[in-house]
Amino acid sequence: MLKHTREITIGSVKLGGDNPVLVQSMTNTDTRDVQATVAQILRLQQRGCELIRSSVPDEASAAALPDIIRQINIPLIADIHFDYRLAIAAMKNGAAAVRINPGNVGGKEKALEVICAAKDMGKAIRIGVNGGSLEADILKKQGRTAKALVDSAMRQLEYIEATGFTNYKVSLKASSVPLTVEACTLFAEQCDIPQHIGVTEAGTVFSGTVKSAMGIGALLLKGIGSTLRVSLTAAPEEELRVAWAILQAAGLRKRGAEVISCPTCARTDIDIISLAEAVEARLAESDKQITVAVMGCVVNGPGEATEADYGIAGGKGVGLLFKKGQIIKKVAENELINELMAMIEAE
Amino acid sequence: MLKHTREITIGSVKLGGDNPVLVQSMTNTDTRDVQATVAQILRLQQRGCELIRSSVPDEASAAALPDIIRQINIPLIADIHFDYRLAIAAMKNGAAAVRINPGNVGGKEKALEVICAAKDMGKAIRIGVNGGSLEADILKKQGRTAKALVDSAMRQLEYIEATGFTNYKVSLKASSVPLTVEACTLFAEQCDIPQHIGVTEAGTVFSGTVKSAMGIGALLLKGIGSTLRVSLTAAPEEELRVAWAILQAAGLRKRGAEVISCPTCARTDIDIISLAEAVEARLAESDKQITVAVMGCVVNGPGEATEADYGIAGGKGVGLLFKKGQIIKKVAENELINELMAMIEAE
Repeated sequence: MLKHTREITIGSVKLGGDNPVLVQSMTNTDTRDVQATVAQILRLQQRGCELIRSSVPDEASAAALPDIIRQINIPLIADIHFDYRLAIAAMKNGAAAVRINPGNVGGKEKALEVICAAKDMGKAIRIGVNGGSLEADILKKQGRTAKALVDSAMRQLEYIEATGFTNYKVSLKASSVPLTVEACTLFAEQCDIPQHIGVTEAGTVFSGTVKSAMGIGALLLKGIGSTLRVSLTAAPEEELRVAWAILQAAGLRKRGAEVISCPTCARTDIDIISLAEAVEARLAESDKQITVAVMGCVVNGPGEATEADYGIAGGKGVGLLFKKGQIIKKVAENELINELMAMIEAE
Repeated sequence: MLKHTREITIGSVKLGGDNPVLVQSMTNTDTRDVQATVAQILRLQQRGCELIRSSVPDEASAAALPDIIRQINIPLIADIHFDYRLAIAAMKNGAAAVRINPGNVGGKEKALEVICAAKDMGKAIRIGVNGGSLEADILKKQGRTAKALVDSAMRQLEYIEATGFTNYKVSLKASSVPLTVEACTLFAEQCDIPQHIGVTEAGTVFSGTVKSAMGIGALLLKGIGSTLRVSLTAAPEEELRVAWAILQAAGLRKRGAEVISCPTCARTDIDIISLAEAVEARLAESDKQITVAVMGCVVNGPGEATEADYGIAGGKGVGLLFKKGQIIKKVAENELINELMAMIEAE
């Protein structure tokens, strides 16, 4: 169960409170290229992206926002570095929120201008604190620790809260998984501000998936996180696939079918690897929120398959078709997948 | 830091206590095929496998063990289902340990025969409790819950401890990640018996990696787990790659180089995806325990790269070479990887 946080509003979307954990990603197109950016966002929407962030590094990017936002269906968050005026311009041009790191937009005064503009326009803010850009005095006193990340965040929040503005979320990110998990946990113990969670600079599809699943997964299992982004050095479509797999495995949200399958071992008489990959591929586009078990032998098959909605268990040349733990029928091995899919589609 | 457990001995290896978390995998060859099984185990050893488990489903498999064990360098654990006599035969034939689920070898009396044989021969036991095969009375009273898994384990441990045998570890596995994490955590709170951790029937390379990284990762971050197996419906080599990535991300053990890289975004002027994949590939065989950062732009590059031993940050046509946060030199983009590798290899 998720830990309680206060609710905030990002455009058409509510986040925190009793809302589900929202999935976001970031465009990697040139924001000034409206057509490419819109096309990518529409693809990401289809894959379950619920909030999209785009870099706004210059005025031309800020100027492109109205044309982009008009053609998409999810709130856009402008990612700002260095120039606080771009944050204000992005909100004026329709961004539902901006992501700023107060430390790199010129400090408290500049950050306060952004906060007040957001308050006036009914926008949201993400305050990003990153292990790589901590204030010198905090870093000197505490090192790159969880407490340093939280203290850095709290220093910003003090003057933000003083303005009466509460429509914001916080992210505490580091490329170290234990540091990220510890910092977000410490922050959640100290306040009820919604958190955007993720592991920064996580890496390639392989190592980024491992680190994100660990870090984001460990936090979600503790009930921490109102929205998440899986950061990968890869196409953003990959980030969404991993994000949804994490939410599904955490038992928090479902999107499409989940395939569970046993590892291979000497007892397996069928080609379980191909079978599981094939079932996963056949179900990839399914919107049925089901669990399907692909089991290699009689040892684990029947027992484990009771937890799944549907299942197949392999044997020598023949397999068994299951439904909620009940054997439906015996099927020839080469007909297993077709029979399984027919059973699922018939419901 | 790992939670304290008592230490056990599996052949030449010590596990639990102050020992590092050990990595294991399972062969998927026919155990009777000595040549194929040995070849697979030798490949797995090279990839960091420290304990190997093989199915022993019949007498011919038990008879093959001496020939296998003679040719490998890591302890072999025999995986037993149904027939307790095969457990005893496997230990007689050189297995350093057996994995049994007392529920499926015929209950307490049969399990005790295996325990006493292990005690006499100085072998180890893994007691496996699986969410899919809980006793009917426990399941009826408590459902498939964490407490049910722990109670099922405790029921076995009571009569095992009564024999004075302590050279065993326990695994509590389910295909649900939250259930697995909750059960292992509850067990760790109740005793100091070393745990083998993992998520069962985790799935294909993709979903199995996500679920294993989440479940095993969340436990390791809590200090729980003396040995682990990543179960994938894939070649066991893949299991080891994921296992080591998890241990590395948890900050517990290192094996070779770690690449951190930033996600792509509109600020990136270089092809960061290809660059990061190429650096990861070039470092795959390296035994240097280093962290290498591949950064796409000046925003995160310099700050984040201070945490890495070496790094490159890209720009328009040229990039920067870093070493522990210090800029070493400017390099043309197409020479970045070669210069980086030359710098690493020169040390």
